[in-house]
Amino acid sequence: MPTISNKGKRMPASPIRKLTPYADEAKKMGKKVFHLNIGQPDIETPETMLNAVKNINFKVWAYTPSQGNASYREKLSTYYNNIGYNISADNILVTTGGSEAITIAMESCFDPGDEVIIPEPFYANYNGFACMAGVEVKPIPSSIDNGFALPNIAEFEKLIGPKTKGVIICNPNNPTGYLYSQEEMEALKGLCLKHDLYLFSDEAYREFCYDGNTFISPMHMEGLENHVVVFDTVSKRYSACGARLGCLITKNREILEAGLKFAQARLSPPAVAQIAGEAAIDTPQSYFDNVISEYTKRRDLLVEGLNKIPGVYCPTPGGAFYVVAKLPIDNADKFCQWMLEEFDYNNQTVMMAPATGFYSDTRLGEQQVRLAYVLCLEDLASAISCIEKGLENYPGRTQ
Amino acid sequence: MPTISNKGKRMPASPIRKLTPYADEAKKMGKKVFHLNIGQPDIETPETMLNAVKNINFKVWAYTPSQGNASYREKLSTYYNNIGYNISADNILVTTGGSEAITIAMESCFDPGDEVIIPEPFYANYNGFACMAGVEVKPIPSSIDNGFALPNIAEFEKLIGPKTKGVIICNPNNPTGYLYSQEEMEALKGLCLKHDLYLFSDEAYREFCYDGNTFISPMHMEGLENHVVVFDTVSKRYSACGARLGCLITKNREILEAGLKFAQARLSPPAVAQIAGEAAIDTPQSYFDNVISEYTKRRDLLVEGLNKIPGVYCPTPGGAFYVVAKLPIDNADKFCQWMLEEFDYNNQTVMMAPATGFYSDTRLGEQQVRLAYVLCLEDLASAISCIEKGLENYPGRTQ
Ligand SMILES: Cc1ncc(COP(=O)(O)O)c(C=O)c1O
Ligand SMILES: Cc1ncc(COP(=O)(O)O)c(C=O)c1O
Repeated sequence: MPTISNKGKRMPASPIRKLTPYADEAKKMGKKVFHLNIGQPDIETPETMLNAVKNINFKVWAYTPSQGNASYREKLSTYYNNIGYNISADNILVTTGGSEAITIAMESCFDPGDEVIIPEPFYANYNGFACMAGVEVKPIPSSIDNGFALPNIAEFEKLIGPKTKGVIICNPNNPTGYLYSQEEMEALKGLCLKHDLYLFSDEAYREFCYDGNTFISPMHMEGLENHVVVFDTVSKRYSACGARLGCLITKNREILEAGLKFAQARLSPPAVAQIAGEAAIDTPQSYFDNVISEYTKRRDLLVEGLNKIPGVYCPTPGGAFYVVAKLPIDNADKFCQWMLEEFDYNNQTVMMAPATGFYSDTRLGEQQVRLAYVLCLEDLASAISCIEKGLENYPGRTQ
Repeated sequence: MPTISNKGKRMPASPIRKLTPYADEAKKMGKKVFHLNIGQPDIETPETMLNAVKNINFKVWAYTPSQGNASYREKLSTYYNNIGYNISADNILVTTGGSEAITIAMESCFDPGDEVIIPEPFYANYNGFACMAGVEVKPIPSSIDNGFALPNIAEFEKLIGPKTKGVIICNPNNPTGYLYSQEEMEALKGLCLKHDLYLFSDEAYREFCYDGNTFISPMHMEGLENHVVVFDTVSKRYSACGARLGCLITKNREILEAGLKFAQARLSPPAVAQIAGEAAIDTPQSYFDNVISEYTKRRDLLVEGLNKIPGVYCPTPGGAFYVVAKLPIDNADKFCQWMLEEFDYNNQTVMMAPATGFYSDTRLGEQQVRLAYVLCLEDLASAISCIEKGLENYPGRTQ
């Protein structure tokens, strides 16, 4: 039998799916499981988008251009120009989800052995994409004590060596929900210009900023034109995760050229999704207003509810739909598994993502969990009660 | 400005898209261009599939499981068992096009520096996928003189070294249309068992076998269970290239496990495509009978027409919808460009794919072109006339 690749062995399994068998078992036993573990929103996809799917009128479901349909890229560019990115359709490569934008950017910008700095906790799949590209991730811990603000630039500089080629930020952040400030973005700009680093800006949650805070993209910053690559996706913006539609945006001509070659190898992004994505740009502002208002209520309910539980600390994030909370527990993996396997409250329990999966040094996440507020207020309230009762009964409780 | 990766520099551009600007220019000048250069069939997608898209009734366009919807994998397994693969849903990983199945298999089975043997001419994007994985392609020329039959096994053995980990075949073949015989498949089996090599079987054109020939997959062969990985796609089977839906099939547990980790990193294959793909399995046999009958007529028209042109030789392929023909020309790239730039016949011309893009040693393809018979008989007849007149007038004609 031929041997599998070392890459295949080293490739990390998705940490947020590790507990799925326990959740399945719990459901088989008749428990109701509240899924706060993944970023699959319950919010309805805009009708404009679903109607575009229902109204397809082609006879041959054909490939689109590798860089995406011209009409979609044009329309996308108007969306981005409305938020001040100052780009044309040529700066956009349509991808199969934001995921593929990350892969294409990594392959285009990094060689095996290159290093990329990422503040942690971070979106766990960056590890997978880095493994595929042979790139080494250099993490910098951010701290729950200041709400997971950007670590000091001096900490970045300590890690910079001859192999360092870029920085990845996710803003608003998954898993922490943290929204970077203008000052933090300026600091990153200085860093990237000084050391000539790529700045990858994962903006999957751009639309989800609360309390009137404004979102700052490095696309808004002068002088960074050749350094910035944006990863975007319709997954969260329109609650259309299954469309598999995203894009890579950059003003750097070399990256666009290299990226197109990777895009050509896989031929085409999905055709129906692009038709729907084009229609989605006409989604009325009222849709987003409702969604933001709903998420704000959920965030407030969750953060307040968690902080009322003795021994729990949860900062109030400015964006996305996640929080990372600190719990009085010995081990987040054990606790989350215990909640599914051993615990129920009125025959209900909660699935959470142990934060260990979002740190390179898993010890940093051992007392933390990530919760996605992707359920309605009523379910969220029940889930909070479950967590409270669970912590009261958990044998590994530390305080 | 940070520097782009060496990978990004080395990554090959798609050879079949190289001439696109000349085709665009020709169209601007009012010429009608017959596109025989790409494998985008004009055949209609089955109504079962398009109706499934039109009838979607979900409210949230959600991620599916990373390995694909359970119901789709179940239904796919019945399709494969009907053709004797003897698998279960667990042996299937649903992918974003056959393209992604190739990437995932390469990443799971090969490390950078490993070598894979491929008979050439071969599907040019294998070069791109190999570049992404850092894998070296070792080509073995097949010859137009015997219709591009499998090269002698002794030729494979000459290339096998400590880094050789697998063989890729595409059957029926793109670009040659060659359909491997039982004997050839047995020879490959012997080779892969003797040297413990993976056998990757790209079966994108499985459905397209002519003259009553039967398709033999290595999935039909005992003893190869741990060696074989099949790449499949709905792109050509149902003329649904834009769905971006394929799968990886293997009985090797290690590959399934590693492959799932790569699939998890990119979260999910497209959701609507899977609904349509599931419905497609009920496409009536009459659909395929009509398609096969149409393609047979086209192949016969094209092969006969080409062979009637003085100096042209075109073998009759047993499958797929491509032919590779030898032309009396100095250079296929120049000729194909000239046909678009300089030539027209009744204001019509033809876009072909220079075969140079399908060989590692481009000289082997300098007198050859690939033609995809993806147009109706009438257009095909006009295209043949154009080629004939073009060859009469081409300044670089050699005989
Ligand atoms: C931070 C971040 N980036 C990228 C993605 C990829 O999303 P998709 O591939 O669905 O666009 C996700 C999905 O959860 C995410 O959270
Ligand atoms: C031989 C071969 N393999 C794989 C593919 C990939 O097809 P897709 O990604 O559309 O499934 C193609 C497409 O033309 C092909 O010709």
